[in-house]
Amino acid sequence: MSSEGVDMATASPRRADGRRNRERLLAAAEAVIARDGAGASLEEIARRAGVGSATLHRHFPGRRALLDAVFHEGVVRLCRRAEELLEADDPREALATWLEELTVYSATTRGVATTLLAGPDGYIAEEDTCHGLMRGAAGGLVGRATDAGELRAEATTDDLVSLANAISLSCEGDPYAARRLLRLALAGFAA
Amino acid sequence: MSSEGVDMATASPRRADGRRNRERLLAAAEAVIARDGAGASLEEIARRAGVGSATLHRHFPGRRALLDAVFHEGVVRLCRRAEELLEADDPREALATWLEELTVYSATTRGVATTLLAGPDGYIAEEDTCHGLMRGAAGGLVGRATDAGELRAEATTDDLVSLANAISLSCEGDPYAARRLLRLALAGFAA
Repeated sequence: MSSEGVDMATASPRRADGRRNRERLLAAAEAVIARDGAGASLEEIARRAGVGSATLHRHFPGRRALLDAVFHEGVVRLCRRAEELLEADDPREALATWLEELTVYSATTRGVATTLLAGPDGYIAEEDTCHGLMRGAAGGLVGRATDAGELRAEATTDDLVSLANAISLSCEGDPYAARRLLRLALAGFAA
Repeated sequence: MSSEGVDMATASPRRADGRRNRERLLAAAEAVIARDGAGASLEEIARRAGVGSATLHRHFPGRRALLDAVFHEGVVRLCRRAEELLEADDPREALATWLEELTVYSATTRGVATTLLAGPDGYIAEEDTCHGLMRGAAGGLVGRATDAGELRAEATTDDLVSLANAISLSCEGDPYAARRLLRLALAGFAA
């Protein structure tokens, strides 16, 4: 009874506290991950947010859940771009443009590439993770390019997302190099 | 006079000590880097080798010098492979084969990709670093493929080495995935 019929007068401030802690944790995580990458210290993130490690773990049961929350907004923005590009005239160029935007976002935002590489952790349904959202968005553009006969049959969505990830990891901080290498790899190196 | 005219009876054991310390440091570095990657703790490497940090820094003035020494042998082996492949019949396939071997070596040996990405540190002449040696070896194969009209004019040696590095970083521990992605990128994704 006490867990279901919550007294609104005490529950609301507690919920507001929870929201504030979550926001503080996300802001702290963003700053520390921007400096130290995806392997940033969770203890430092909690300390910076002014909460204990137990509170961090109550909000984010593991590193993956925290990374997914930090980059959720950026990934959703890229998913919306994929939807827009589904309406573009040239399916091959639409796919290349989107992969370029993904690569540049990952190359200029520490921690994103590692987050997108991560497999399921059992806490979040795969389709709701950054990896799952991104794969879904890529799949639409890849499917359209394949249907138009613009992509080699053996090239899969996972191959293209892996390529974008690979390039953003090695061209970290250099969006020009990332863009150049992506365009070359999409076109191939043969004369 | 005392620094130049060294007494051989005391200098030799000191030189043997130096050699032993260097070997111990390299063995320790290999083990710790295999576990923790290129960012491994230098303090832990010194501790494991049974020497002080000052001795580590006397042998290897910085992280780059240590990484370069650890991977020197593997890189020299790859350079010899490049020389052999310069004699192969098909210049494009020779280049692809060598890039595949480089990618698989980097994908299965933690720390190599980061070492190959590193720029000059002022301690070692660029052409003697792992990066310089590898670039030289790649340059021979790229030049031959370009002369045979097998490579697109805008593709440079640095592009191809960057591609191999990018793929090995994102496919760490998975040589099959690394090889597949490299072959796809060299051929291009267009139908």
